[in-house]
Amino acid sequence: MKIAILTIGNELTSGKTQDTNSSFIARAMETQGWGISAMTSVGDDEGTIRDALDWLLARSSAVIVTGGLGPTADDITTAAIARAFGLGLVLDEKCLVHLQARFERLRIPWTENNAKQAVFPEGAETIFNPTGSAWGFAVKKNGKIVAVIPGVPSESRRMLPEGVIPLLRREFPDAAQYIETRVIKLFGISESSIDQTLKDVDFAGLGVCIGFYPNFPENRVELTVRTPDAAQAAARLEKAQAEVTRRLKKNIFGYGNDTIEVIVARLLTEKKLTLAVAESCTGGLICDRLTDVPGSSAFLNRGLVVYSNQAKTELLGVPEDVLKRYGAVSEETARLMAEGVRSRSGVDLGVAVTGIAGPSGGSDEKPVGTVFVALADGRRTLCEKCSSRWDRRRTKVFSSQQALRMLQQYLTEG
Amino acid sequence: MKIAILTIGNELTSGKTQDTNSSFIARAMETQGWGISAMTSVGDDEGTIRDALDWLLARSSAVIVTGGLGPTADDITTAAIARAFGLGLVLDEKCLVHLQARFERLRIPWTENNAKQAVFPEGAETIFNPTGSAWGFAVKKNGKIVAVIPGVPSESRRMLPEGVIPLLRREFPDAAQYIETRVIKLFGISESSIDQTLKDVDFAGLGVCIGFYPNFPENRVELTVRTPDAAQAAARLEKAQAEVTRRLKKNIFGYGNDTIEVIVARLLTEKKLTLAVAESCTGGLICDRLTDVPGSSAFLNRGLVVYSNQAKTELLGVPEDVLKRYGAVSEETARLMAEGVRSRSGVDLGVAVTGIAGPSGGSDEKPVGTVFVALADGRRTLCEKCSSRWDRRRTKVFSSQQALRMLQQYLTEG
Repeated sequence: MKIAILTIGNELTSGKTQDTNSSFIARAMETQGWGISAMTSVGDDEGTIRDALDWLLARSSAVIVTGGLGPTADDITTAAIARAFGLGLVLDEKCLVHLQARFERLRIPWTENNAKQAVFPEGAETIFNPTGSAWGFAVKKNGKIVAVIPGVPSESRRMLPEGVIPLLRREFPDAAQYIETRVIKLFGISESSIDQTLKDVDFAGLGVCIGFYPNFPENRVELTVRTPDAAQAAARLEKAQAEVTRRLKKNIFGYGNDTIEVIVARLLTEKKLTLAVAESCTGGLICDRLTDVPGSSAFLNRGLVVYSNQAKTELLGVPEDVLKRYGAVSEETARLMAEGVRSRSGVDLGVAVTGIAGPSGGSDEKPVGTVFVALADGRRTLCEKCSSRWDRRRTKVFSSQQALRMLQQYLTEG
Repeated sequence: MKIAILTIGNELTSGKTQDTNSSFIARAMETQGWGISAMTSVGDDEGTIRDALDWLLARSSAVIVTGGLGPTADDITTAAIARAFGLGLVLDEKCLVHLQARFERLRIPWTENNAKQAVFPEGAETIFNPTGSAWGFAVKKNGKIVAVIPGVPSESRRMLPEGVIPLLRREFPDAAQYIETRVIKLFGISESSIDQTLKDVDFAGLGVCIGFYPNFPENRVELTVRTPDAAQAAARLEKAQAEVTRRLKKNIFGYGNDTIEVIVARLLTEKKLTLAVAESCTGGLICDRLTDVPGSSAFLNRGLVVYSNQAKTELLGVPEDVLKRYGAVSEETARLMAEGVRSRSGVDLGVAVTGIAGPSGGSDEKPVGTVFVALADGRRTLCEKCSSRWDRRRTKVFSSQQALRMLQQYLTEG
């Protein structure tokens, strides 16, 4: 089954707003096993909307439309589609009552133009909006469907899976399959190496589709099962996931949608361990990421951004002669930083990063991108050297991830 | 003049890759004063490419195409366009020599399929690629232009202004105007308040177009002049910029593309002042932003992420009874944090932030989003209370911006 996407709005064709709906919808269709014939964006102009709709409808079983459902004069999608299908416009009482109640609850004064949002093409099926005032609708003609939802991403992202996809699955039962997805998150390996490592696994034979989604500095592997027989889905996914895990175990840091900072925060909280962080080249990014997790004050005692050698000595007790002899970017310094931040903060674990983020400051022996990551628990101190081949910002992101990954491995493997 | 955009690639129609080229190109066309008829994405399928090209070409003076110019079998854009126009394919010797030299320089082994990238429709004008191996091309038919560039954003972002736009301006001289743009960056004011404040300025009368581009937590105002008479452009922009500046002076932190961290870094470096930062709710984000600027080690002595009360007392000398009496989130604490981090680090300036990032931890008196920002220079200590109505991450970003803005104002106004 082929689906087309039509996104409507002058803010899209002026380049003012980046259209993210098309990509989101395309991916959801891919998951359903439906192909995309074309994705088109046009401005708020009735002639162009009708023209694009005709073109797309001729090439697809259904067109999913977003945008132009607001209460103002330039929102013309509903009227344009009604006229394109030769349908009148009718007020939906149920929607009107819901809208008025919503306005009252949010204490927004009701003005007459808002009633426009309760008007739909005659015979249309309305699509409930759980987070906004613009309901969607679907119309059917010659066995084809046009489904319309708002352009606001927070609304379309809910109305697509809750309203549009169930409707399309109902209208096209032959194309409706049972679908289940597993997400595997990896770090420290490139997309092409993942591809290479998995190339002997017969995913098709297992009845599983595999997709790779790089998201610096991570890579995501998605396993999807589409089957008329739901009972088999879980078994197939388990098998495919086991194959991936067996081959890539050391690079997998999580399953599902948790970030590494959420995973580390959960482990620290569960184990009731406290943490202090000493950052040189990451410049505060490790703490910034950890404090994005609500409740991080339970484990994060402090973070020290020791950008100067003076700060490394004063705050962490790294001796000046170590800095002179081995350099601020060295295994010796990294170890002493982790040990110093731990003992001086009176916490369970100390983590430290020192490196050369660039663009300058590198040498033959220690090129730009050289980073040392260390972890001290009072009994022993671990240290890893790694190297980034990216720009300053990416080196910071990569190094912070390396430190969080080290912490995760310590907390899970001991 | 109407322009259409066609982006090609299975990675777009599968939703795997977000198309950012269309939006970028649309905005560049808007700047030229050219409208967009439609923007369409299709997969790597010859029939669909030709079909979309026909539809778009019928509605536009030119179609800008991106994607499908790689050396592999699934890159079929060049062949599809040649056949659509009834043109043969010819090898471009100049391009071939350039490609082979490039491969040699980068030590990439040359394989025969790479020669495919030097093949173009007969009569096409080639478009030089300064950063990659896929050159673009343009073909003309019945007074209309199809211009093709690669889909890789780092390449298309250069080839559009350097190759495609000059070509279109040359081919459509009546639609080619002189264009100049000024960017004004604001903080601490909403897009609608900017709109409201500027509504009595007659930008059209000044011959200037104005655009608003929110980019949390900032807003960007863009002033654009399009004129056949280049001499007048600068004068008009000066006048319009003066009108904006007069009305919004206190919210403008910069002109052009500099970030606030770059501006602050430049001021500190110029004035040879050193800085230490104490962060509670921002969790390291201020230091993270400052250390994104190359050379920040010249002024940033240290940053302290004092997430626990213990750290505030030990590292900054905030007395326990102040924390008890006024709370960790209070003007008193913020001031003592800024003074403490300054004096204990032996630097010129101390900056501190303490607040409630949420989602929990608020009270009636101090709701979630309450933030205090302080700056100490040894003679006096400034403190501002502000409040964020956003989620945890945005509260952190907003608060870090507030601190950087305070620092900027101190450094410029004294």
